[in-house]
Amino acid sequence: MSLAETTRTAEVMDAIRRRVTSRTLAPGDRLPSIRGFASAMRVSPSTVVEAYDRLAAEGLIRSRRGSGFYVVGGAAPLTLAEVGPKLDRAVDPLWVSRQSLDAGPETLKPGCGWLPADWMPMTELRRSIRALARADDATLADYGGARGSAALRRLLARRMADQGVEAAPDQIILTASGTHAIDLVCRFLLRPGDTVLVDDPCYFNFLALLRAHQVEIVGAPFTPNGPDLAAFGKVLAERRPRLYLTNSGLHNPTGASLSPHVAHRVLSLAAAHDVVIVEDDIFADFEPEPSPRLAALDGLCRVIRIGSFSKTLSASVRCGHIAARADWIEGLIDLQVATGFGAASPAATELIAGALGDGGYRRHVEALRRRLSLAMRDVDAKLARLGFAPWTEPRAGVFLWRRLPDGLDAAAVATAALAEGVVLAPGDVFSVSRTASSFMRFNVAQCGDPRVYDVLARAMART
Amino acid sequence: MSLAETTRTAEVMDAIRRRVTSRTLAPGDRLPSIRGFASAMRVSPSTVVEAYDRLAAEGLIRSRRGSGFYVVGGAAPLTLAEVGPKLDRAVDPLWVSRQSLDAGPETLKPGCGWLPADWMPMTELRRSIRALARADDATLADYGGARGSAALRRLLARRMADQGVEAAPDQIILTASGTHAIDLVCRFLLRPGDTVLVDDPCYFNFLALLRAHQVEIVGAPFTPNGPDLAAFGKVLAERRPRLYLTNSGLHNPTGASLSPHVAHRVLSLAAAHDVVIVEDDIFADFEPEPSPRLAALDGLCRVIRIGSFSKTLSASVRCGHIAARADWIEGLIDLQVATGFGAASPAATELIAGALGDGGYRRHVEALRRRLSLAMRDVDAKLARLGFAPWTEPRAGVFLWRRLPDGLDAAAVATAALAEGVVLAPGDVFSVSRTASSFMRFNVAQCGDPRVYDVLARAMART
Repeated sequence: MSLAETTRTAEVMDAIRRRVTSRTLAPGDRLPSIRGFASAMRVSPSTVVEAYDRLAAEGLIRSRRGSGFYVVGGAAPLTLAEVGPKLDRAVDPLWVSRQSLDAGPETLKPGCGWLPADWMPMTELRRSIRALARADDATLADYGGARGSAALRRLLARRMADQGVEAAPDQIILTASGTHAIDLVCRFLLRPGDTVLVDDPCYFNFLALLRAHQVEIVGAPFTPNGPDLAAFGKVLAERRPRLYLTNSGLHNPTGASLSPHVAHRVLSLAAAHDVVIVEDDIFADFEPEPSPRLAALDGLCRVIRIGSFSKTLSASVRCGHIAARADWIEGLIDLQVATGFGAASPAATELIAGALGDGGYRRHVEALRRRLSLAMRDVDAKLARLGFAPWTEPRAGVFLWRRLPDGLDAAAVATAALAEGVVLAPGDVFSVSRTASSFMRFNVAQCGDPRVYDVLARAMART
Repeated sequence: MSLAETTRTAEVMDAIRRRVTSRTLAPGDRLPSIRGFASAMRVSPSTVVEAYDRLAAEGLIRSRRGSGFYVVGGAAPLTLAEVGPKLDRAVDPLWVSRQSLDAGPETLKPGCGWLPADWMPMTELRRSIRALARADDATLADYGGARGSAALRRLLARRMADQGVEAAPDQIILTASGTHAIDLVCRFLLRPGDTVLVDDPCYFNFLALLRAHQVEIVGAPFTPNGPDLAAFGKVLAERRPRLYLTNSGLHNPTGASLSPHVAHRVLSLAAAHDVVIVEDDIFADFEPEPSPRLAALDGLCRVIRIGSFSKTLSASVRCGHIAARADWIEGLIDLQVATGFGAASPAATELIAGALGDGGYRRHVEALRRRLSLAMRDVDAKLARLGFAPWTEPRAGVFLWRRLPDGLDAAAVATAALAEGVVLAPGDVFSVSRTASSFMRFNVAQCGDPRVYDVLARAMART
């Protein structure tokens, strides 16, 4: 076979592989007919035959006598990294999480989304674990109720009330984690092919999670006061999304918070177009006093509020929660029993309730806010010296969203920095439209080590 | 409006409601045209108009000027209990789990699937919790690696080797629970509309979980040696399922175990039809020596092995695991990061690894086996006195699958018993074909209280 023929065969094989990994062709599906695909690919039928035979030899497809070629079941499962347009791995929404989660202790992680362990209330945590060892047998050994610990749900209801969100304990369910909470809500409300609206930029894992639900993701540009209202309304009218997934207070990645006006308009537009809003509020405790919350204005009518304690207490003791309208709770519980058998771990919730009840937790959070605001000022100044330009000054929280100087490409800088053991968060992993390539998100709590700036400077110089 | 008209209107409203709850009509979908639906329902157009107006008043649907009626977004989310044919709640696959999970301490639960707390190794558990309070900060506060604790995965690899399953630690991922593990694998391999094969009867939550994935569920009759091979082969050939979900050792609900011959044939048939097998092996530790395992024979080529410690250590400290072929692991991890952000709780896995490493755990499991086999003999005799007929004698485990006398209906008996505070497990919740109405599953560890038999006798007499 000539080199040109070999190349054309490889092209046909790649085209089929892409369709399989993107699930355009699913296991069991019939492949395009030889003639049809040959003309579509502008190659000879014999080239397609050759390509199909090789893919069959690889085990990706198989022929059934007289009925053509089929994708082999199970051999080509959904792999998120490859769904949709094949992205450069550096800007894959899963890149930052995978690099941060699996980073060794020596790795620096200014790109990750959580606080260093030594910023957490370890004294309260250890005290609560020792108390757990004395809990009753049922708490330590049984599944617990389908809604999750009543004590923790009462405590959460009181805390939400402080933030202006009215939720009865029976409107709250505990989940395995904050991400599981969002996942559960998405399963409850969405089906493949639905359209979901996110902020552009938004938390990168929203994009990975929504891909797992095989929905259409559309974005509305985010401003320092919240979504751009004109664009937001236009997308609602034209794309008719079923859901809007956002974090309104201390937005991830920008650190921005909704203005009262924008919050009100977003709710009104959502009502006009009958869109459900999922408000992920896991940064709530970082705010000295709460900024406008959609859940608070709406009163949990079309807004579902998500929270967890991974950012202020422990990411190891996993537990998330959902607050939603009463008539959705039973369905959410059924779904959680079906897919997780029961709610959050009773041992974990006992531990968390204990730590939250501890007066030390409130003092810890207050100290944490002061420490974070000092760190933010310090990191901001150091980034400015490297030429990073501000986008907005967050009122609190852990994130700075900054523009690189001289049109440098964030993905290239992040890739270079990773080679030196520093995990950064390049802008495009947060952007569904991939229009944030000159931005980076910095976690000020993870920027204490001076090596961060040395590596950053070298990586910027090298790209 | 005449009574007949009212009735017809109500019928039309119910028909639409069913389509909405079953997602035949999804939020945003257009309702059938007035004329079309009128002739389909054999009613007058005015009746359909009346029905649509009332549903609009209820807020389930809304009219858009000039373009008909639409299902309101979000207002009609997927509610599992109502997906598919509307079952009597007593035989809803979620009925037993919901009743058992939310049962008060005074409730007796012979129908539930787990052991009483005082059958669990509380000493080892409490010792391990006290040790956890001294773990390093990262273990108590960080997310941990995306695969989950390396120590626990190494320990699991060794334990699986003892059961003849060869899995490297890198082929194992830890999940939030055993059910989450199955859910993750289903998401990885399935998409809505796929067909999945289960045993008939099978663990009721398999049916609830598969419904959540909106797949077709088909069953193959289960015999005391495993699936009926003729029926099994026929279903594979005719329905082309993508997946077979089963527990082969100490099958739930029947307690049966695979014979070597059936295990070999099941694998051969699965290979011939290219079906992936998910083997849920959470009862593994109850067997004195392992019965044939598909994962062991297959070597994790097309078999995925699921496990957890909810049955022998703690259901409160949640953690499940998946062992699968190496080239599927990365995709499974990506999916778990996207939908749960990270693996099982590092605190939970540290606790579990500690308890398992404790020599007391092995002694606990041996004592547990002896205690269970005594309980099984005792409960079997007591049920025989009530007229229950054996189906098979399990070699070990917690379950007895027994036929009610005199063609009594298990669902009716269970409903009557619930009124007296006893949760039973009627056969049809386990049966996709709903052909097990005369069977019940008993958890021998939950049948120690003599009131179980008094209530059972009364409930049987009353039905």
